[in-house]
Amino acid sequence: VIEERYLNDWSGTRYGTPVGVELPQSTGAVAQMLRTCNAHGRPVAVQGGRTGVSGGAAPGEGETILSLERLNQIEDFDRLGGIIVAGAGVLLEDLQRTVEAEGWFFPVDIGARGSCQIGGNVATNAGGSRVVKYGNVRDSVLGLEAVLADGSVLGPPNRLFKNNAGYSMASLMVGSEGTLGVVTRAAFRLVPLPPVRRTALLAVAPNVGVEELLFECRCRLREALSAFEVMWPDYVDEALRVGTAGRSLPGGFAGRRAVLLEVEGGNDVALGDELEQCLMELIEAGTLVDVVVSSSSRDAAALWAIRESVGEIQAGIRPYVGFDLGMSADAHDGFVGAAKELLAQRIPHAKSFFFGHAGDGNLHAVVGPCATPEHRECVEEALYSLMPPMVTSVTAEHGVGRKKKRYLARSRSADEIRAMKTLKRALDPNLILNPGRVLDM
Amino acid sequence: VIEERYLNDWSGTRYGTPVGVELPQSTGAVAQMLRTCNAHGRPVAVQGGRTGVSGGAAPGEGETILSLERLNQIEDFDRLGGIIVAGAGVLLEDLQRTVEAEGWFFPVDIGARGSCQIGGNVATNAGGSRVVKYGNVRDSVLGLEAVLADGSVLGPPNRLFKNNAGYSMASLMVGSEGTLGVVTRAAFRLVPLPPVRRTALLAVAPNVGVEELLFECRCRLREALSAFEVMWPDYVDEALRVGTAGRSLPGGFAGRRAVLLEVEGGNDVALGDELEQCLMELIEAGTLVDVVVSSSSRDAAALWAIRESVGEIQAGIRPYVGFDLGMSADAHDGFVGAAKELLAQRIPHAKSFFFGHAGDGNLHAVVGPCATPEHRECVEEALYSLMPPMVTSVTAEHGVGRKKKRYLARSRSADEIRAMKTLKRALDPNLILNPGRVLDM
Repeated sequence: VIEERYLNDWSGTRYGTPVGVELPQSTGAVAQMLRTCNAHGRPVAVQGGRTGVSGGAAPGEGETILSLERLNQIEDFDRLGGIIVAGAGVLLEDLQRTVEAEGWFFPVDIGARGSCQIGGNVATNAGGSRVVKYGNVRDSVLGLEAVLADGSVLGPPNRLFKNNAGYSMASLMVGSEGTLGVVTRAAFRLVPLPPVRRTALLAVAPNVGVEELLFECRCRLREALSAFEVMWPDYVDEALRVGTAGRSLPGGFAGRRAVLLEVEGGNDVALGDELEQCLMELIEAGTLVDVVVSSSSRDAAALWAIRESVGEIQAGIRPYVGFDLGMSADAHDGFVGAAKELLAQRIPHAKSFFFGHAGDGNLHAVVGPCATPEHRECVEEALYSLMPPMVTSVTAEHGVGRKKKRYLARSRSADEIRAMKTLKRALDPNLILNPGRVLDM
Repeated sequence: VIEERYLNDWSGTRYGTPVGVELPQSTGAVAQMLRTCNAHGRPVAVQGGRTGVSGGAAPGEGETILSLERLNQIEDFDRLGGIIVAGAGVLLEDLQRTVEAEGWFFPVDIGARGSCQIGGNVATNAGGSRVVKYGNVRDSVLGLEAVLADGSVLGPPNRLFKNNAGYSMASLMVGSEGTLGVVTRAAFRLVPLPPVRRTALLAVAPNVGVEELLFECRCRLREALSAFEVMWPDYVDEALRVGTAGRSLPGGFAGRRAVLLEVEGGNDVALGDELEQCLMELIEAGTLVDVVVSSSSRDAAALWAIRESVGEIQAGIRPYVGFDLGMSADAHDGFVGAAKELLAQRIPHAKSFFFGHAGDGNLHAVVGPCATPEHRECVEEALYSLMPPMVTSVTAEHGVGRKKKRYLARSRSADEIRAMKTLKRALDPNLILNPGRVLDM
């Protein structure tokens, strides 16, 4: 009997009955398993913490589950060089805490931190809220150990900041969602832990584009800017209504888009002054109509709680459809307006909430309730129809998995999809690794 | 007749007689050329600015040269979002100047900036002196347009900071040295131009490891630290002797390793204070024995000129052998000592100078004169024998090309090299793109 927890990811959808679970405790055991599966053409479902929402980790019919959860050791931590090497099964939060205890910082952070595993973070190129400053997981990976379908082992993980000895196989593995190889170990570069952090919530003037505000903040705050999250008015209202934050907002926020801004620095007073001056200038210029600045870490947490009320908001509109769109920040406002209008026509009973990581162009939306497959499809069709093909992304951070596969051709050209399939066939000719994910072969 | 300039790269070695030069003016023309060459199995030498030193761009016997020099347009510059899209043939320096004129910064910088082209920078994952802060070219690339051997076009270049819609073909192309595809266009992310920069030269105490000093500087200066270059005493002496810098150094520098440190920031006074306090603490702790801090940009240039005297130093020991080694910074001091000793035994008539980008582990050496191939090989064998295999790199930034190919197996495992060959065969089955570079097929 296979334990329940191995049967799906956070999206909850099931795709078939797997035949077993393997929990290897070494790279050698992973290689041995894949060699056997490859020889017999047995499909494998690769699993980390199963916190994805694209159906990538959920096993399909007849698949053997390969869970990396027992490769959960932090294997080497270079405290002088700021480099950590960890097994795929290490929890993101454990990695974060380990390095922070020594004055270093691993800047990738996502809501699932307590459950997701770094192998999955790498395989899906996890993003989160600090991409505006630190980039995605890809930007923190120095090197990987990965096992290919035939049991070949790529590795040891590169640990050098500069290494041009041959192709970067690691870069190809990052974001390939377990379809090209199984990540077993990763080396990450760290940054010195920022001693000070400040958070503010900004009410944006109606005539100001999100991209203009982002530009003004980047000009003034430069590298101090570590998060720039946006919420449209319906989202803010609903977040306050569900009450996760346990606070209200001043009147200036009513009906306005709210931006959650975070800055980091070395000196508390200097950072505070810099933030204050920036906000004062933007208020004087009419760019902002109101601001709330955190004066304590509890304050900051309450502001972040508004942004992170998404679970509670979703709970009120189940079954909902979630979106993970990528588009230039200067398209966000226009898109949200057009989407609201189209949804009101097409599926008037549903509510929609828009929010996201405007600093990196990642716009999230949840729409619901969408009780039937027809409703779901109608909503997806509506929103995707508003996105210019090829220059926008149907999945900015969640990954393709199974759920976004049918829309992949909106974001990647036919030549690109053909080239991806060529790589898939070259590295996994028997198509045993996560079949049916990312590409239809 | 083929113009002289197309016949080799900056290493000067020739590899054969090419049959012609093509100078396409569009991606479509590149695709058309490659389709034809692919159909007839004609080998192609891909060229940017030919400033490499690994023999990658130098044409081989019977090859048709494909120069990207006419794809030299800056095609789009998003001044609000900080994104630039440019043709492969744009000079690095032109790109830098274009963005700096608008308050943005393209952080990749190498000595060849006035001649190298951004397509080549991408294809070789160029590094340089600011990798400690900004990473290699890979970290600035958002997306690429590239033409595969069969004329398929990957693109348009991704311009989103977050996009997980399918494999990152761009990441695979970066650093593949034109053997997997031809980069025709690139989208880069920019950072706000740092308003202030300060440079200092530090004389390191004999008992202090370079890696310890780097750690201390990173802890104190954090993100302000934008370059950390090291020169061993022989190099400093020779640089002063050749006189490019037009200045001398205080007595404390005699016989010491010198570190060139650069910091960047938003505020001149704050940055100066931060640097001064850091240096004072390190002098008090006995980590540094002397320092020179630039008080003007002319001062700073003179300090950089010491570090950049490598051309003049090489000129005095021709024919020399150059090294581009990657190893953890805590191995640098031991390596240099052991290498000096071994070279003194094996090739006593030759001089050797060691210097490099200690901030990213990249250690350069020049050894000469080495008049015969036997001398060259003896020197290479000596230095590589001191490097532990797999965890060090025979080419940190210059790339494999033809010259480092025979040493690739010191830095990459047999499984990895086999996987690279699998990718090469998958994307270029007729082996027309830069044959004989990177891999022996």
